[in-house]
Parts: sequence; C-alpha cells; structure tokens
Amino acid sequence: MIDLDALATRVCAAIPLTTHLDFRFTAFDGERLTLTAPLAPNHNDKGTFFAGSQAALLTLAGWACTTLMADSAVGEGEASVDVVAVESSLQFRAPLHGDIEIRAWADDGESGRFHQRLKRRGKASLGILAQATDAQGVVVCEYQGLYLARTNNNDT
Amino acid sequence: MIDLDALATRVCAAIPLTTHLDFRFTAFDGERLTLTAPLAPNHNDKGTFFAGSQAALLTLAGWACTTLMADSAVGEGEASVDVVAVESSLQFRAPLHGDIEIRAWADDGESGRFHQRLKRRGKASLGILAQATDAQGVVVCEYQGLYLARTNNNDT
Repeated sequence: MIDLDALATRVCAAIPLTTHLDFRFTAFDGERLTLTAPLAPNHNDKGTFFAGSQAALLTLAGWACTTLMADSAVGEGEASVDVVAVESSLQFRAPLHGDIEIRAWADDGESGRFHQRLKRRGKASLGILAQATDAQGVVVCEYQGLYLARTNNNDT
Repeated sequence: MIDLDALATRVCAAIPLTTHLDFRFTAFDGERLTLTAPLAPNHNDKGTFFAGSQAALLTLAGWACTTLMADSAVGEGEASVDVVAVESSLQFRAPLHGDIEIRAWADDGESGRFHQRLKRRGKASLGILAQATDAQGVVVCEYQGLYLARTNNNDT
C-alpha cells in the first residue's frame, strides 16, 4: 500500500518550491497518478491558473508517477531510485478559472518495458502523458514528458 | 527606459508563485530579456535546480519578453496588453548545480511581424526561444514557447 501523503511530505521537504504549489497526491493505481492543487496560491495576473504553476505541477506529476513505478519495479528496500526529467511539452488549451486536477500515466505499452529495463540495467527512460482538467473535467492543458530513472546501487 | 524592477514587482504582486522563485529581471535590450534566480529556494531532492522551477522560470521569461515587446508595439499608455502561453517545450541538457541565468528572445524574424500584427489586428502570436545556463555559460535547458498577445481595447 503506497502512502501518498508520506510521498508528498518527502517531496515538500526535499523541493522547497513544491510547498508553495500547495499540491496533494490523491490517488495512484499502479499506473496512473492524480494530483490536485488550488487556484488561490497559483493564480496569475488575469485571475486564472498561472501557466508556470501548471508547468511545475505537471513536471512534478510526471516525476512522481515515474518514481512510484520505478519503486515498484525495483522492490521496496531493494534500492533507491533517482528520477530526472529529460524533456517535456505542454499545450495550453483553455484558461483555468478554478482548482487544477492532473492525471499522469505511462505512455501506451511503456510500463512493462520500463520495469524490465530498470531491473535488468539499473536505468530506464519512461514516456509520461498527463492532462490537466478543471472541476468539470474540461482539459485545460496536455503534457508529454520523458523521464530517466536510475537505481542507486548501479553505476552503469 | 524600461524599469525591470517595477515589472518584477508587478509580476510578484499579480502571480504569487513567482515570489517564491526569487527571480530578478537583469536586462532587456528591446529584443532579448535576461533573468536570474538562485539555487537555494529552487533546489530538488538531488540538490540541483528543480526541473519544475526551471519550467516555471522559462515560462515566466517567455511571458515577460512577449509582454515587453507587445508594450513597445502598442506604445506606452495606448492600451494594456494581455499575454498568455499557448504551448512550450523544454529539453533538459544537464543538471544545474548553482544559480540559473535565462536568456529569452523572439524567434528569428518574428518580432517585426509581431509588432505589425499586434498594431493592426489587436492580437498576434510570438514564438520565443530561451536558454538556461549555469554561471560558466553551459546550457542546461533549452526552451521553445508560443505566446498570444492581445490588446485590451480590441475584441477581435
């Protein structure tokens, strides 16, 4: 059972900017992570959700989704995993007038290959897709990210 | 003469997250904006510059560069301009172990067309390129963004 609040606490302790995003991980089903954050600390000059906050939250969601999948691949206590962002793209579809909800998941068919490579080679890349929606489920931003995971007991 | 400190104060007052990035606009020559931010409030779990902070700062640099060019196109006091991000891409080239310096500029040959369109139609898009470097000038992240500017006295 993954403790998402403990992961969020760990993230906030290690990455100071994330405390100001006021995010919360709300669910992870082994493949798909959801995250929410309120408008109030993340608004822009037009009163809508700041594109820079969306970019930071989507980057974080992709990182957390990759980290959780990497942790499950290497097994708890087996090795720690470092995950870094390699590249990302965002398309802002509509202004967001309220809180954000983000869903992030591994690109089609990549999770099996990612698990196998990470276990065998100690490092593997993972393509992440994500969508940001408003409270009505309207997609306001689409995201594609590439992340690299590496186990700490392996220097290849 | 553009007062970059006044612009930064306006940004921080309107966009609360930006106060936590601790950024400073350092120069604008009419086409190219530079911005700096320290590592301390922007580090990640590995002690390097958080990718989410880089994404937020690059988004902000592109927005500010577009806003400054739009302001000069419509003329001071003529009309206010709203600028929004449409899409962006980032490539993280290397970990950043210190403070960040960002240079943002209009994509080749786009500034003339942007000025003309914004004056004639009241709205225009602008492609922005940016690079984030370390203190030695090594490029750690490359950025491409598309922004849409719209004058407030025009509803087309």
